[in-house]
Amino acid sequence: MSDKFLYRLDLRYVGEPFNGWQSQTDGGSVQDHIEKVLERILSKKVRIIGASRTDSGVHAKHQVATFELESALDCNKMIGSMNALLPDSVGISSLVEVPKDFHPIGSSSAKVYRYQIWNARHRDPFLVPYVWHVMAELNLAEMVSASKYFIGLHDFSSFCASDSSAKTRKRRLLDLRIASSPDGLIECWFLGEGFLKQMVRSIVGTLVSVGLEKRRSDSIPDLILAKDRSKSGKTAPAHGLCLIQVVYDVPVDRSLLDQFLKC
Amino acid sequence: MSDKFLYRLDLRYVGEPFNGWQSQTDGGSVQDHIEKVLERILSKKVRIIGASRTDSGVHAKHQVATFELESALDCNKMIGSMNALLPDSVGISSLVEVPKDFHPIGSSSAKVYRYQIWNARHRDPFLVPYVWHVMAELNLAEMVSASKYFIGLHDFSSFCASDSSAKTRKRRLLDLRIASSPDGLIECWFLGEGFLKQMVRSIVGTLVSVGLEKRRSDSIPDLILAKDRSKSGKTAPAHGLCLIQVVYDVPVDRSLLDQFLKC
Repeated sequence: MSDKFLYRLDLRYVGEPFNGWQSQTDGGSVQDHIEKVLERILSKKVRIIGASRTDSGVHAKHQVATFELESALDCNKMIGSMNALLPDSVGISSLVEVPKDFHPIGSSSAKVYRYQIWNARHRDPFLVPYVWHVMAELNLAEMVSASKYFIGLHDFSSFCASDSSAKTRKRRLLDLRIASSPDGLIECWFLGEGFLKQMVRSIVGTLVSVGLEKRRSDSIPDLILAKDRSKSGKTAPAHGLCLIQVVYDVPVDRSLLDQFLKC
Repeated sequence: MSDKFLYRLDLRYVGEPFNGWQSQTDGGSVQDHIEKVLERILSKKVRIIGASRTDSGVHAKHQVATFELESALDCNKMIGSMNALLPDSVGISSLVEVPKDFHPIGSSSAKVYRYQIWNARHRDPFLVPYVWHVMAELNLAEMVSASKYFIGLHDFSSFCASDSSAKTRKRRLLDLRIASSPDGLIECWFLGEGFLKQMVRSIVGTLVSVGLEKRRSDSIPDLILAKDRSKSGKTAPAHGLCLIQVVYDVPVDRSLLDQFLKC
């Protein structure tokens, strides 16, 4: 093993054309596309490991993956070759050799996700692929109140897909902030050490039901304690969600979201 | 004529799915889609007039069109019906009755166009549909120097499609500014009273040839005087261009671009 080289890919992709991150039998996932391109360039099968298994339709402004090789690469040339062969909806931004103990999931200290809601009567054609369009006016103050209850270490069983294979459903949500702009865009920013399957989308579905005043903001603590997915809101559509950053090598505290919310 | 009602539509659209603004025999233009929807709702043929005949592939964050009817509309209901029937790539943001002397072109005082260049080695999948990707490093300072020569009243024959039907090729370009961000995005902002066919795109093609140092910035005055399209740069791709605003009822001076450049 000691003579192998470990490489780290940083990439971004638009969710819509792909069948999620993780390899699928139809070959339509982001992982499938990248592995096919690596095989074509290197004339051998290469397995990659991603930091986050984004669902079908979810976007990524920053995703990280690794792969192992027995020979060294010309990284600069390799990025160019990969981008030339990959579809336009995915782009490699960096490829570097990393120490052998680096792991895309194990070495990361946190992830940042953003969920976008478009709360206006009329659609914005430029945002359609990236927002959940909710026409009825949302009570933003109530949503913000509700959001506070999710922060901290909880058993998130009420906000986890029933087919999740996670050993424990306890996760620490470091921060959840809601920002809005006058034109109707509502951004929900999530900072966490790790997330369960569909956790962000089911929390957002619940926050929207609070915003629609179908559920009280102070009902959230009981909902968390219920540990019952059937009691929480619907799963928000995938295309509103974007993996913004997989965080490595920086101290993680709540101020990490400040850089994004300034945008 | 005095018993007719004149309506003004404000809308935006993503360029890619459409065959430009103006009605085409294949029915694939934005105008065609809107006229079909109006006919379906009102059970009669309605002709609309647009403020700008954007080329195939060009986007619009703000376009204006008018149509005349013999009976009054419930505008609020009408917008909802139109948006429900139109494809997601186009959206009506407003519909109001206007005085009969309003004309989408004649009443406008200026238009703002933005052309986006992505000057980085690697693509950004989220920007691919909205930028011209130029990989070779551009000399931005030279481009800015060149841009100054275009401002003012000129015969823009060197920057006009050969099949233009315009009576005169004199146009007053009120301002042209170039803004760039560290990640590689270069925005060229145009403010003018009126534009010739492919004028923005051929000016941008010429600015890029200056940026690539294939042409000197101080060659622009002679190029304008030549009044010869074959002497200027290539026409920049349509999908980098966006009609940002058709301006009505505000005094037009160069400060108008300030609000956009802050973004």
